[in-house]
Amino acid sequence: MRVLFNEELEQVADDLEKMVGDVQAAITTAGIALLNSDIDAAQTVIDGDKKIDDLESRIVDQCVQLLAKQNPVATDLRVIVSTLRLASTFERMGDLARHISEAARRAYPGSGVPEQARDIFVKMQHRVEEVSAQVVEMLANRDTKTAEEIIIGDDELDDLHHATFSVATADTWKGTAQDTINLVLLGRYYERFGDHAVSAARRVVYIVSGFDPAKEPEHTGPDPD
Amino acid sequence: MRVLFNEELEQVADDLEKMVGDVQAAITTAGIALLNSDIDAAQTVIDGDKKIDDLESRIVDQCVQLLAKQNPVATDLRVIVSTLRLASTFERMGDLARHISEAARRAYPGSGVPEQARDIFVKMQHRVEEVSAQVVEMLANRDTKTAEEIIIGDDELDDLHHATFSVATADTWKGTAQDTINLVLLGRYYERFGDHAVSAARRVVYIVSGFDPAKEPEHTGPDPD
Repeated sequence: MRVLFNEELEQVADDLEKMVGDVQAAITTAGIALLNSDIDAAQTVIDGDKKIDDLESRIVDQCVQLLAKQNPVATDLRVIVSTLRLASTFERMGDLARHISEAARRAYPGSGVPEQARDIFVKMQHRVEEVSAQVVEMLANRDTKTAEEIIIGDDELDDLHHATFSVATADTWKGTAQDTINLVLLGRYYERFGDHAVSAARRVVYIVSGFDPAKEPEHTGPDPD
Repeated sequence: MRVLFNEELEQVADDLEKMVGDVQAAITTAGIALLNSDIDAAQTVIDGDKKIDDLESRIVDQCVQLLAKQNPVATDLRVIVSTLRLASTFERMGDLARHISEAARRAYPGSGVPEQARDIFVKMQHRVEEVSAQVVEMLANRDTKTAEEIIIGDDELDDLHHATFSVATADTWKGTAQDTINLVLLGRYYERFGDHAVSAARRVVYIVSGFDPAKEPEHTGPDPD
């Protein structure tokens, strides 16, 4: 019975890793869509989101079955409960990659990124790709060190997010109202992607240690969240 | 043992209802903060968010204990798994009420709502208050009819959200870049509040029927999500 249970837990772990791999691919391709005004890349991400949603549904069903049949305790129970929450978090990260791609598609053949803020979004894209790779590694190795790096590293995305608002409210801002809209929406998608990575990191720390680290970092200060 | 289990389930159900009541109070007070430029109301919501977060933590702990000790099956298992997801959803709704209040506080003594879009935000506020009341009722009665009304009624918030973008991209728009930023952020907070209410409604349908309704409604069309 134990061997079977472990195999079923392995199946759930595999699906979760598959899901986070899909999220990593989605956010990478979304960046290509946005920064290269690539409509095919945008459509790829938009079409691929269903697969991520389906993985979440499958993981939830598997977890419910595991809970019903196996009466897991201690570590396994933490793993299953955390898996439910991780699946939900990864599903939202996939949605955010889709939203970035939808913004790119709407602006096509123009750029979804206002020119004056382009540098900042290039950095934000680089950072979310770094974060995705960290999430993949963290999950594969149940690595709390990487989890801590993700939590600490979220400041960088927050700072870049604040920088976009500085650009848009400066006297030098030449963007239209639509440019400002795009900037605010995209900035928020990237920032929320980072927030969800922090949530995932907290979940992994909980799995390994049974301890739930402090709540998501508060976004304080004058700039909008 | 069954009676005890039911009592513990009742405790979790009570905490969930307490939580959603706090969310209803938070979104109502956030509306006062925003539409009346009321900084005390804003601070009340901001300070009160911790209580909502703490309730979520407590509910998660209680659910894990119930899963460990009781080996629940069938309906009870659905209830517990769904409760975990509902607690997470309500915690996000509380965060959104806090974000609305932070926007009001930042703009004080000015208005966080751009004047030309005020009518739309008054309607959005009215709608999220309606939705909160529906969520409270749905949870108290495990009422799938109210759940369906929430799911169908989400179109209204989406339409109002789209209307804000129409206002901001029209030739008649007199707002500054900051006004546009506020409009986009606030519109998104309200729209996400409604999305989370739909998520909660889907969870209740799942609890009652074992069936998971179709994914959140897709936000299609030219306007940004």
